[in-house]
Amino acid sequence: MAEQTQHPTPHIVIIGCGFGGLEAAKVFKGKAVRVTLMDRTNHHLFQPLLYQVATAGLAAPTISAPIRNLFRQQLNVTTLLGDVRSMDANAKQISFVQPGSDVQHTLSFDHLIVAAGATHSYFGNDAWEQHAPGLKTLQDAMALRRKILMAFEAAEAEEDAARREALLTFVVIGAGPTGVEMAGTMAEIARHTLPGEFRRIDPASAKVILLEGGSRVLQAMPENLSEKALKQLAALGVDVRLNAKVTQIDAQGIEVQNLAAKQALEGKTAASWEETCASSYQIHSKTVIWAAGVAASPLGKQLAQSTGCELDRAGRVKVLPDLSLPNAPHISVIGDMASLMREVAGQSVPVPGVSPAAKQMGRCAAANVLRRMQGQSTQAFRYADYGNLATIGRNAAVVDLATPLGALRFSGKLAWLFWLFAHIYFLIGFRNRFVVLADWTTAYLSFSRSARVVAEADLNKG
Amino acid sequence: MAEQTQHPTPHIVIIGCGFGGLEAAKVFKGKAVRVTLMDRTNHHLFQPLLYQVATAGLAAPTISAPIRNLFRQQLNVTTLLGDVRSMDANAKQISFVQPGSDVQHTLSFDHLIVAAGATHSYFGNDAWEQHAPGLKTLQDAMALRRKILMAFEAAEAEEDAARREALLTFVVIGAGPTGVEMAGTMAEIARHTLPGEFRRIDPASAKVILLEGGSRVLQAMPENLSEKALKQLAALGVDVRLNAKVTQIDAQGIEVQNLAAKQALEGKTAASWEETCASSYQIHSKTVIWAAGVAASPLGKQLAQSTGCELDRAGRVKVLPDLSLPNAPHISVIGDMASLMREVAGQSVPVPGVSPAAKQMGRCAAANVLRRMQGQSTQAFRYADYGNLATIGRNAAVVDLATPLGALRFSGKLAWLFWLFAHIYFLIGFRNRFVVLADWTTAYLSFSRSARVVAEADLNKG
Repeated sequence: MAEQTQHPTPHIVIIGCGFGGLEAAKVFKGKAVRVTLMDRTNHHLFQPLLYQVATAGLAAPTISAPIRNLFRQQLNVTTLLGDVRSMDANAKQISFVQPGSDVQHTLSFDHLIVAAGATHSYFGNDAWEQHAPGLKTLQDAMALRRKILMAFEAAEAEEDAARREALLTFVVIGAGPTGVEMAGTMAEIARHTLPGEFRRIDPASAKVILLEGGSRVLQAMPENLSEKALKQLAALGVDVRLNAKVTQIDAQGIEVQNLAAKQALEGKTAASWEETCASSYQIHSKTVIWAAGVAASPLGKQLAQSTGCELDRAGRVKVLPDLSLPNAPHISVIGDMASLMREVAGQSVPVPGVSPAAKQMGRCAAANVLRRMQGQSTQAFRYADYGNLATIGRNAAVVDLATPLGALRFSGKLAWLFWLFAHIYFLIGFRNRFVVLADWTTAYLSFSRSARVVAEADLNKG
Repeated sequence: MAEQTQHPTPHIVIIGCGFGGLEAAKVFKGKAVRVTLMDRTNHHLFQPLLYQVATAGLAAPTISAPIRNLFRQQLNVTTLLGDVRSMDANAKQISFVQPGSDVQHTLSFDHLIVAAGATHSYFGNDAWEQHAPGLKTLQDAMALRRKILMAFEAAEAEEDAARREALLTFVVIGAGPTGVEMAGTMAEIARHTLPGEFRRIDPASAKVILLEGGSRVLQAMPENLSEKALKQLAALGVDVRLNAKVTQIDAQGIEVQNLAAKQALEGKTAASWEETCASSYQIHSKTVIWAAGVAASPLGKQLAQSTGCELDRAGRVKVLPDLSLPNAPHISVIGDMASLMREVAGQSVPVPGVSPAAKQMGRCAAANVLRRMQGQSTQAFRYADYGNLATIGRNAAVVDLATPLGALRFSGKLAWLFWLFAHIYFLIGFRNRFVVLADWTTAYLSFSRSARVVAEADLNKG
């Protein structure tokens, strides 16, 4: 690809085609630049609905759009499938490999926008991953779907009562939006979708436990909405345990420390066996799902090495207000990989890792690249906060909208309908919106789920 | 599961939930029997549309229905996920394992219906499988989809012209219905779906080669329809090579012997280098698809060991006219696993391995089980042949219907529409019919394909 460096048109490389990378690439439409958009997969993923793929409500293609198809009309965008291996800020080069190949390709850039997103973080306990997978990619979602459906299948064939109970105990760790969605939907599947289809077990007897280390669910939400969400979860049959810290995860299940009980005991000796038990206990479960922590893409570390930029505790790159790097104005970092503070009511808080922030950053970073090319000064990123919404399950959601007239907060069925239409509206592609709407209408009326399918080889992996 | 053998209600075990097993189980609705339906996957697969999943036209869940959901209302059916490991005709027991587990479960039966279908056969060249995968399961289809889409992605990044050409050369081996569908659809993707989305390659320059060892395509069809199909394939841009015998397949591509050229040379020495070349040549290809041979499930061999029954060359079990086994009247074999001859115009021909035959056998075998339980004599299977249809691609298909007034044969757009509605009609479940119709209408009008998505881990497997 040596010919490209000789080309006079500025070459912008965007790494990652999530919400941020996608919006950034769009800004260059019709501009006198060449854009290369690189991603490890061939699709843009509508991550807010990923839990629906994991819980067999939607098929994988419904929430994914082939990247090169999205840019079919934008002739200055070249899409490349590749996994970035190194970035050199001085040489203005990246190297990448393609799936199933060891051949390193290099690509030169004039401007680089890094939007590689986040991955799971097990807070140093990487051995937990095999027992408690997370949910970030389509592959994660398919693996979780398999794990959940296969637990019920195995329970139907299991003769031992204790093992059957462990198979019918589902634990979700972390009560952020993903954890709440997963727990609520799994309770719905156990209570409404599967009953009547098994002859030896009663799926409705399955336990869904949601563990949260903090003192409330959905901590990004106002407190009263957290309380509403907690009530809605309980109504769906989810056993929510707050102040519950996970201390161990293995093939048999997990060990939980009850922080509230531990606090009560602090400074004294446990008076009884019950008190000790109250502060630490086991849950036997064959299906544990990790929704507790995220860390920025490891590409952040590479940038730190190459440019000397700083990382925050979650591995996010501390960017300048215009989203570029302190020592490398030709490199910008956006979305879940970027660490940036903003002022809210006089307090300094981080820009949240949500899709609207990623999209806005993508537009800002790309506009700043164009400004820099024209010798103009760049503009600082301003986050427009439109609020926050989270779904819990059938007819259950919480909405916290920031309107010009102040906050608008509601919950329950109306919030659920709002969530539903907001998500369908933002889904890319007419066909997908249509399919999601059709699937959800069917699911709502019949309690069924349309994607309860696990491919054969996946089964054999167990 | 020992308690089951003490139960007075007769227990019928059905192995495999393809078209045959599904129909057999339905016959027992409302009867005083217990039925256990066992499959290696959790879904019934609508195999005639599997090539659409492989070619990214449909999502996997669209052509699959969860088995236990299909039998939700039929309370005497228990669905179990399991891979059968052994069958004992005398002890009337089978043993099975569940995915990801080594624990052997046993199951006693009074009657056994074996409907485990067929798998690929490489005619003794098992090493070819890794280079030329086949298409039988959902997992096969997903792997093929990945292989096809990734070849275009790799070509876009490839700088070497020869390697790029090998990436853009697609070979399908075997011109039966699956091979013809795959080749036609891949040509459509290369010519109509992908052009305009790549910047460095022209997908329309991709070669799709269909190799057939025999002298015509679709040999189960009348000769004039084979000719029509050949013309339609050529019109779609498929390079069809008849009398082409594959002699070697490896990572670089395949070696082909031109049987016609070889015949011409027979008994003489090749006069020139050109003549020798004409009889044997290489095709460099990174994507070779096997659609040439099938063999019955290996469970056939187990039955032969356990009951002394005979197998035909493809490993199918030679069944009695009532579909039971010669030495084991309590065991029946149906569908692609059964070998049975019938009389057509005074000639003895095998009952074909097609879904209508499997369904009819399923109904016949189940009815005979009920007759035997009531002390009645069983009835011989009679195959009702409604004809044959095959699709080739956009607006292209051939239909050979057996009507009471004689054969009705047509091809082209009308045949294609007939094929389309016949397949949508037979698809299980209202929602799936609806989604397929919507997907196909969109695809027909826009030339796009809705499932061009490859999950991440699959990519990394290369």
